[in-house]
Amino acid sequence: MARLESYDKSLDYSYAPGIFPATECLKNAPERCLRLLLSSASEKSEGAQHLRAQAEALGVRTEIADRALDRISKKENCFAAMVYRKAEGVFDADSPHIVLHHPSDSGNMGTILRTALGFGLRNVAVIRPAVDSDDPRVTRASMGAAFSLGVRHFDSFKAYREEFPDRQLFPFMLTGAVPLQEAVARVAGPFSLIFGNEASGLPDAFAEMGVSTLIPHSGKIDSLNLAIAAGIGMYAFTQKDRA
Amino acid sequence: MARLESYDKSLDYSYAPGIFPATECLKNAPERCLRLLLSSASEKSEGAQHLRAQAEALGVRTEIADRALDRISKKENCFAAMVYRKAEGVFDADSPHIVLHHPSDSGNMGTILRTALGFGLRNVAVIRPAVDSDDPRVTRASMGAAFSLGVRHFDSFKAYREEFPDRQLFPFMLTGAVPLQEAVARVAGPFSLIFGNEASGLPDAFAEMGVSTLIPHSGKIDSLNLAIAAGIGMYAFTQKDRA
Repeated sequence: MARLESYDKSLDYSYAPGIFPATECLKNAPERCLRLLLSSASEKSEGAQHLRAQAEALGVRTEIADRALDRISKKENCFAAMVYRKAEGVFDADSPHIVLHHPSDSGNMGTILRTALGFGLRNVAVIRPAVDSDDPRVTRASMGAAFSLGVRHFDSFKAYREEFPDRQLFPFMLTGAVPLQEAVARVAGPFSLIFGNEASGLPDAFAEMGVSTLIPHSGKIDSLNLAIAAGIGMYAFTQKDRA
Repeated sequence: MARLESYDKSLDYSYAPGIFPATECLKNAPERCLRLLLSSASEKSEGAQHLRAQAEALGVRTEIADRALDRISKKENCFAAMVYRKAEGVFDADSPHIVLHHPSDSGNMGTILRTALGFGLRNVAVIRPAVDSDDPRVTRASMGAAFSLGVRHFDSFKAYREEFPDRQLFPFMLTGAVPLQEAVARVAGPFSLIFGNEASGLPDAFAEMGVSTLIPHSGKIDSLNLAIAAGIGMYAFTQKDRA
């Protein structure tokens, strides 16, 4: 890592911009933290100074880097960003998986990662082509949730299926055959909740895989927003365990 | 209405940018449509030409207005925008209400309006100060859902309560006393689901009003995103009717 570049998906490192996301990175993935960038103005921020002390205690290099922060974050008043090494997550085959098939919006992906962590769903498969899960906009929207999750990338849904052949699949579709509450009642082992692209949803072929799941809503809207549908799905499938 | 201005909340008209939102406006609130603005490029768009024909059939003036569209929409390729008259909605006292207390993000508000329409929740109270529900960014995020809803504004929650004193209140709070599924089971008449500000939530005083409701999630996240929490709440409270 020489000069810090504006983020590009070909780099093997990325940035977690903002005090909260940078702190999550340091706390949950300290071995991946390469450098903490701080703005000159951060000296007035208690949160930033606390983060700086934590980073130094863990042996992470810190530096004032106003120009790099300006390049990285288009937002004003970014006091800090963690430079971190990208890494593929590790999956737990017995736990539920979230599968995002061709997601294209960074805000949606960040919100979905944050919601997944909130509901204890720690295995997230991203099927490419997809928005880059290490894009700083995703990390900002997720509030750094990805550092507590296992996020893995697959070049196709077939590749995911080959590695995890025996799971119960719940593709969420506008043409789903089974309403959400009924689908939840059919869970009988490790399962995968599958959500499609913002504009096009899941390809029709998914209707033949497992329990195609419908979130009933009125015909007055075309569809729910992807992050909302995923949030409702994740909530419903994890309530069972809580009840 | 003389020269069309960039949108400002003090104006008594606003813009629904994009073919889909403009079509929703024409279909669901034709009496409020003042003018349809079209870009020169819209002549190549089938959707835009269809919208134009519908507008003309309903006696809404149409015009090519590239510069006005550029001012209104910072997004590229905006083929059309409907100029419409703002209007307060009308509430139905017997139906559920959604109450948004000091919402501050236009994307969240748009998503919440779209979700509310999807779940048939047509009465939305906005307690000020709040992001302007007629901001074109809200309309874009909502896909024009507001034209099928009654959205009303109140200067305080007290003003809302004075007009609707006898409703069962469900304030959603991180410190909520009753988990969502249990709260749903307590519904016993017309109810209001109340959601707070993105950053600060609802003031503590709401804990004493009605059934303070909790969406259980892990301590690994501070809170769910507002639109996600509202989406899950609206889903859970409307499932009853469907089961």
